[in-house]
Amino acid sequence: MPVILGIDPGSVRTGYGVIETLAGGRSRYIASGFIRVEGQTLAERLNHVFNGVTQLIDMYHPQEAAIEQVFMARNADSALKLGQARGAAMVALAQKAIPVSEYATKKAKQAVVGSGRADKAQVQAMIQALFKLERTPQADAADALAIALCHAHTLSSLVRMGRVSRGTARGRWREGDLK
Amino acid sequence: MPVILGIDPGSVRTGYGVIETLAGGRSRYIASGFIRVEGQTLAERLNHVFNGVTQLIDMYHPQEAAIEQVFMARNADSALKLGQARGAAMVALAQKAIPVSEYATKKAKQAVVGSGRADKAQVQAMIQALFKLERTPQADAADALAIALCHAHTLSSLVRMGRVSRGTARGRWREGDLK
Repeated sequence: MPVILGIDPGSVRTGYGVIETLAGGRSRYIASGFIRVEGQTLAERLNHVFNGVTQLIDMYHPQEAAIEQVFMARNADSALKLGQARGAAMVALAQKAIPVSEYATKKAKQAVVGSGRADKAQVQAMIQALFKLERTPQADAADALAIALCHAHTLSSLVRMGRVSRGTARGRWREGDLK
Repeated sequence: MPVILGIDPGSVRTGYGVIETLAGGRSRYIASGFIRVEGQTLAERLNHVFNGVTQLIDMYHPQEAAIEQVFMARNADSALKLGQARGAAMVALAQKAIPVSEYATKKAKQAVVGSGRADKAQVQAMIQALFKLERTPQADAADALAIALCHAHTLSSLVRMGRVSRGTARGRWREGDLK
């Protein structure tokens, strides 16, 4: 069953979560954590995100990726910084030809907690319970796992609906417009 | 003398300009144009920018790159889109280990027209005159050439001041903070 890499991009930390979808709509935890966005210069920091995502792909061989969709950034300055980190992560996925689906944070929270208004602690606790993790995952890692899980649910409901054949769903839900 | 690649990132078109610095603070035009940001999905569009910049590097072998610095984006939505394109372009430069300097549009305009308030047409006309081009360059290409020229001026004044040895200026002016 497909391995899904969830990414929660950020300009300070970029969270990631890797899960595998199982039969019956269930999912298995593989890994999670975050890339600390380090570097003296902006180019170095963005390169660090790119290289980090590339390493994750080489390590876990995901067939699908899911990334947080940003609807409303706090302000133009933080939106620019978030956009840069998001661009670096998406290019790393695109370079490895991994289809990227985008999900609003609200939808990812709904998939995990059942409410789009859940706070970070609730997402962390629910992710820990769902995957039977020994420790509470770090907040960005938990968000990334929630995004991956949201994509797993979408894939599994499409499979049930008979809309996806041969376990692939390339070219769908890849919303977002750069124009 | 160093070849400089100037980049004016945008979510619809990413302009580029390639120049070579000559002795006596002069510069020679090599190439300019723009990458049309094409693709069905956001990931494909960003990948297109990344691949386009990578191709430019492979074609012109620049030793230095200069990119437009964004101080104030119009709004959060356009800042996010610009940030994504900017991130894709910067990662392409970083992957090839080309040092990236950032310049405010105002500074680039000053370097070319003499005024930070020059409009696009003035920049295009002045770029055409300075490099003795047969045709008026496209607006984004002209902006990218202006950014490259701004970096050439900075390099040449630092050389005059004896602050740069062996024609290299790595690790300086790479402003911007992803935090």
